[in-house]
Amino acid sequence: MIDTPTLVDQYCHGVLRTELGLGTFEAHLGRTAGPPAPGTTFFDTQTGFAVRRWCPPLLGLEPHCPPARYLARRRELGVLEAGRRLLRGSGISTYLVDTGLPGDLTGPPEIAAAGAAEAREIVRLELLAEQVADTSGTVESFLANLAEAVHGAAASAVAFTSVGAVGHGLALAPEPPGPGEVRGAAARWLAARQVGGRITDPVLVRHLLWIAVASGLPLQLHVGVEDPMLMTGFAAATSGLGTDLVLLHGYPYHRHAAHLASVYPHVYADLGPALVHTGARAAAVLAEILELAPFGKLLFSSGAHGLPELHVVGARIFREALARVLGGWVGDGAWARTDAERVAGMIAAGNAARVYRLG
Amino acid sequence: MIDTPTLVDQYCHGVLRTELGLGTFEAHLGRTAGPPAPGTTFFDTQTGFAVRRWCPPLLGLEPHCPPARYLARRRELGVLEAGRRLLRGSGISTYLVDTGLPGDLTGPPEIAAAGAAEAREIVRLELLAEQVADTSGTVESFLANLAEAVHGAAASAVAFTSVGAVGHGLALAPEPPGPGEVRGAAARWLAARQVGGRITDPVLVRHLLWIAVASGLPLQLHVGVEDPMLMTGFAAATSGLGTDLVLLHGYPYHRHAAHLASVYPHVYADLGPALVHTGARAAAVLAEILELAPFGKLLFSSGAHGLPELHVVGARIFREALARVLGGWVGDGAWARTDAERVAGMIAAGNAARVYRLG
Amino acid sequence: MIDTPTLVDQYCHGVLRTELGLGTFEAHLGRTAGPPAPGTTFFDTQTGFAVRRWCPPLLGLEPHCPPARYLARRRELGVLEAGRRLLRGSGISTYLVDTGLPGDLTGPPEIAAAGAAEAREIVRLELLAEQVADTSGTVESFLANLAEAVHGAAASAVAFTSVGAVGHGLALAPEPPGPGEVRGAAARWLAARQVGGRITDPVLVRHLLWIAVASGLPLQLHVGVEDPMLMTGFAAATSGLGTDLVLLHGYPYHRHAAHLASVYPHVYADLGPALVHTGARAAAVLAEILELAPFGKLLFSSGAHGLPELHVVGARIFREALARVLGGWVGDGAWARTDAERVAGMIAAGNAARVYRLG
Repeated sequence: MIDTPTLVDQYCHGVLRTELGLGTFEAHLGRTAGPPAPGTTFFDTQTGFAVRRWCPPLLGLEPHCPPARYLARRRELGVLEAGRRLLRGSGISTYLVDTGLPGDLTGPPEIAAAGAAEAREIVRLELLAEQVADTSGTVESFLANLAEAVHGAAASAVAFTSVGAVGHGLALAPEPPGPGEVRGAAARWLAARQVGGRITDPVLVRHLLWIAVASGLPLQLHVGVEDPMLMTGFAAATSGLGTDLVLLHGYPYHRHAAHLASVYPHVYADLGPALVHTGARAAAVLAEILELAPFGKLLFSSGAHGLPELHVVGARIFREALARVLGGWVGDGAWARTDAERVAGMIAAGNAARVYRLG
Repeated sequence: MIDTPTLVDQYCHGVLRTELGLGTFEAHLGRTAGPPAPGTTFFDTQTGFAVRRWCPPLLGLEPHCPPARYLARRRELGVLEAGRRLLRGSGISTYLVDTGLPGDLTGPPEIAAAGAAEAREIVRLELLAEQVADTSGTVESFLANLAEAVHGAAASAVAFTSVGAVGHGLALAPEPPGPGEVRGAAARWLAARQVGGRITDPVLVRHLLWIAVASGLPLQLHVGVEDPMLMTGFAAATSGLGTDLVLLHGYPYHRHAAHLASVYPHVYADLGPALVHTGARAAAVLAEILELAPFGKLLFSSGAHGLPELHVVGARIFREALARVLGGWVGDGAWARTDAERVAGMIAAGNAARVYRLG
Repeated sequence: MIDTPTLVDQYCHGVLRTELGLGTFEAHLGRTAGPPAPGTTFFDTQTGFAVRRWCPPLLGLEPHCPPARYLARRRELGVLEAGRRLLRGSGISTYLVDTGLPGDLTGPPEIAAAGAAEAREIVRLELLAEQVADTSGTVESFLANLAEAVHGAAASAVAFTSVGAVGHGLALAPEPPGPGEVRGAAARWLAARQVGGRITDPVLVRHLLWIAVASGLPLQLHVGVEDPMLMTGFAAATSGLGTDLVLLHGYPYHRHAAHLASVYPHVYADLGPALVHTGARAAAVLAEILELAPFGKLLFSSGAHGLPELHVVGARIFREALARVLGGWVGDGAWARTDAERVAGMIAAGNAARVYRLG
């Protein structure tokens, strides 16, 4: 049995502070904002089945018990106590938390306390820029404050993250935009936006990414369901600068993400929520990314958001999948046991500790 | 053992009425119109091996017997009796039959009688439009007759299907075309075509799709070997209108089809002939689509055309693959047995019964 | 146990003649020219682990022994003796060798002698054209000499190969370029180049491909990590001309390569170095290409370059993966044992013997 005693969750979010009814809980299992199709439920998904497998025992119930029974027990314990039991049962020792999503979510200190673990902050570049815009009067002050805010955040955060890098924009123009181009885009955006307005202009997003690259902190890029090969130009442009890129959530293009991690020394990959989404298939998906990804370039994360159940499921599925995949190779004679144990420790925690310079 | 006592084949065609020689039979196993490469045979494919595995026993022969022996036995029984034995041995209880392919193929009533099963019709939009064009004198009468024909077909058919949605055209322009645009395209097509001429104009195809959407009947879209993500715009444009879209044959992009089914409540997926084409690998391919597809959004079909052997192989491979995949998860403790049995029934028949409002 | 007593490696390169230190050896295990990421090593990859599994026993060491120990033993034996032991232990009976890569690599006769095997030459079109350019004074003489050189090479080589077909150029213009277009491109290239300059102009590459097609010798096209579906236009344009196309290295798009091999009679596929790159996962990757590829259209190759260890690993991984995949299907009852043995022989050697007209 290949074990992973220490787990660094290199990308997740906080958990909701409020009690949840069955419907609200179910909504967090779907991959879309709306309701499920008539006659169906989000519990009838790999994620739903995985939650029912792993979480009830942590609250004293049988695995696979009906959702209503699980939710009743959760309410009985209260959101705080249920969250504590779940996070402590996840096996995660360190949470790296993207604090840039809206909603009443716990921050790193609360997660650390609830989970009896360490927690560090990942700063979302888009939110940082929007906050700076809310308090900057002119284009010049916005751009100066932005540079200062990124610099300041780099002092305490462990990484930056961006969702704006997704898509074809960065593929077409991977290089940093020129100063005039940035000023023009900033002026147009600031003039048009209202307080709280989102930043989506491709020139400004590229500017943000390049300020972050200059900070030297690892930069996590959300790949979503796009092909990470669209990041090839940006990977080439940032090669040799000393800043690491971490591709988040490459499924179903995770083999492409692994390919990029194998040809660019500064590119890393995780499977993010892919393991949570694919549940009983997680070992197969993990095995696919282990085809090309060098073992020092792959990082565990749960990608969990809102429900501590998702941190549990992310961690448990990962540990079981890794043990099964690597254990199978040891059983076949393809890998030596000591190598498998060493690689398991790298993917579970060691690579993240090195890349994010954790304690 | 996870069983599926009832099977709804949600997409197939009729079978040939004529006796077949070895060469003609073999030609139906290939994926291309021409002959196999010199020195090779279409029997040396997963489909060929699957036919030799599953069909000989239904005609009283050993599994894997040589093709010539199988064909001799088939001729000995006669095409009618062989077809009866094969279809009745498939385990399919209801056939939904696309009647829009050319050739001397049996229709739904004959399939029902031969297979001791139910059969319902799926109307192919392109053929319907071509038939309307053959009997309409003007652009105005063509467009009016077309709307009436679709409306009329919706009263008896269980679904519409279209092959014209394949490709990049719909990706570029998912919205319904304007009336003037439609009239212009219809005028050009009618003026240029001869009786029997095919409809491929992208504006007319989009018009057809949108008339079908308005009918409320489920609309089956052939994905072919294209990336179903090209359907994203059309899925978004038809969201919330109350008409379901069913993506046919997503392999090798079946994970993408499953993704769409997981983010759009009205989008469903099948594996169509992928299981028949991949034979001994069907369980692996089925498992991949079961990663993201909600279990209420996946539908069985054989995609069979011409040979009743392909209905048999589609059904047998599916049942064995599903039992193996879900049974494996139950064996691992990842799924509860009752959940697995329930999900098997949904994919085999229950989801189709709900989507197509069968008895 | 499904065995493959004869192996034709349908695409590989020669091996280095010089003694290698640990760092130089490691560099040949990476997929990129530069060093590995800080804190990582190319030994921590599937390829690295596969080399440590299969090669030490051939030099009298334990499987999975540390890299430094393996390299010490290799130096102790000397590069010649180590190479002889490795190549003879690979099980490869015939090497088809692309002689078009730079570096101090052994040619076909040396490989044959070292490996106690047959070896034949594959001619790289780009190198041939560059050599012709080095000795041609005018555009006219260049084009005439080029045609003659391809014709001459076809008399002794078993195949042509091209890396220039990769990418979107061929997708956009699959047809042969016109004579004026070729002359113009040749004039521009010859005027700009210095001795030794590479040929990358898309018109000239297409011209090269079409001269090669006219020779009738099989043409191997490097797919790299591009989607082989980009070759569809070229496959269609060359269909029926009597020249076979062999797609090299389709991973991670190997299912698409298999699709092309299933719809075009003259298109063949291999997995090239994919099995070497994916190591412990090779059986899974091989099984994926065996979904759609007709069994008469798939060819073994190692894709090895520089290290005889890569020939060993390519051959051993392939044999084990094939035995595991086909043996599993026999065990399940999906395939007959005699069919599995026949198909194993086809993929290992028979298909290559037929396509390349080997003795």
